[in-house]
Amino acid sequence: MKGYFKYSLQAKLVKMQNIIQINTDKQNGLYDITEKVRGIVSKSKVRSGMVSVYVQGATAAIMIQENWDQSVQNDVVNLLKKLIPAGVWQHDAQDNNGDAHLKAGLVGPGETIPIIDGSLGLSTWQNIFLCEFDGPRSSRKIVVTVFDAEK
Amino acid sequence: MKGYFKYSLQAKLVKMQNIIQINTDKQNGLYDITEKVRGIVSKSKVRSGMVSVYVQGATAAIMIQENWDQSVQNDVVNLLKKLIPAGVWQHDAQDNNGDAHLKAGLVGPGETIPIIDGSLGLSTWQNIFLCEFDGPRSSRKIVVTVFDAEK
Amino acid sequence: MKGYFKYSLQAKLVKMQNIIQINTDKQNGLYDITEKVRGIVSKSKVRSGMVSVYVQGATAAIMIQENWDQSVQNDVVNLLKKLIPAGVWQHDAQDNNGDAHLKAGLVGPGETIPIIDGSLGLSTWQNIFLCEFDGPRSSRKIVVTVFDAEK
Repeated sequence: MKGYFKYSLQAKLVKMQNIIQINTDKQNGLYDITEKVRGIVSKSKVRSGMVSVYVQGATAAIMIQENWDQSVQNDVVNLLKKLIPAGVWQHDAQDNNGDAHLKAGLVGPGETIPIIDGSLGLSTWQNIFLCEFDGPRSSRKIVVTVFDAEK
Repeated sequence: MKGYFKYSLQAKLVKMQNIIQINTDKQNGLYDITEKVRGIVSKSKVRSGMVSVYVQGATAAIMIQENWDQSVQNDVVNLLKKLIPAGVWQHDAQDNNGDAHLKAGLVGPGETIPIIDGSLGLSTWQNIFLCEFDGPRSSRKIVVTVFDAEK
Repeated sequence: MKGYFKYSLQAKLVKMQNIIQINTDKQNGLYDITEKVRGIVSKSKVRSGMVSVYVQGATAAIMIQENWDQSVQNDVVNLLKKLIPAGVWQHDAQDNNGDAHLKAGLVGPGETIPIIDGSLGLSTWQNIFLCEFDGPRSSRKIVVTVFDAEK
């Protein structure tokens, strides 16, 4: 019985939801947050489940992408600049950041990633990136929530 | 014991899954469903978790986007028309809506949004939109499912 | 009491997470995995919830799309080739597959689909596709995790 209560107490002490805060230094750029998410998953003790990674803010997004070096990150920024040029949108009359909203909406604010055997279920070349489209910003908030599939 | 049974009963009475039905009046347009999703989250009593918002139908999508005024919604429609023009696809030979399928596939049918302290974890300028790409339609069905991360 | 233990045992025997492995025979192509996901959902016995479908590998993606015939699949491949041409990216200096990474990042590695009354909550024309952007590959791994919203 003692052991049971101890376990319950530990379960309650584990935070299943955390907020990562990072600052961004470019107008358009990708920022690798994989290790921060991995740390939250590890502390949750979930063996089989999922982690939801969601950025607040309508001019940022989350993308799963390779991080061998800076090349793919630069390619992402350049592709989106080509597909969604700046300065030609109705919303520019308000905030001059119509392109940032469109990039954010198309890439999307969240990804859900499986947890397998207690670890983040990314493959070797998959990393989790915050995509900044309207920076620099002093505080981008990313909500990380862990779910257990076995309970 | 009485209290326990009462709690169990209440838990079973809460619907964790609901279907929003809306009609659309444009061929291409965005429709704000944030307040409907917020109402479902509120009734669920979940404090820390996630809500999955998923539209059925292969010519519609869900996008998180700003809703200060109509400008960004118009920009989304215009961007997608530019990137994915109508009338040039193999599928047009069948239904003449190849562009609608491609827009829906690229934007995607669902988003998952965190629930923080009992509230929908959107930022000030994030709203939830149904994207209609092949309207008008009399009934677009959006499945809203709430998950508790603490259980 | 006997009945309770039997139920607990069955619950533990149900696998809430499975990995689908498929091989791909094209450089760019869509592969329908709906029936495999449906089988996993059916075995889980979940009545109301969600299934997360996530592909490992930074040059593949998951898309919900129509599967009446091959036309929309061809249109998806052709659209992405037009929007994201091969051979013009910084990353090509390393692996010559920059376009595959960009397609994968834009479409995204995962979708979450509701489970309604014990069935996959897809509409008539929605199927689940693995998108291959850098094939052929002998083994693409798709992680399928089921979540129960009622527990």
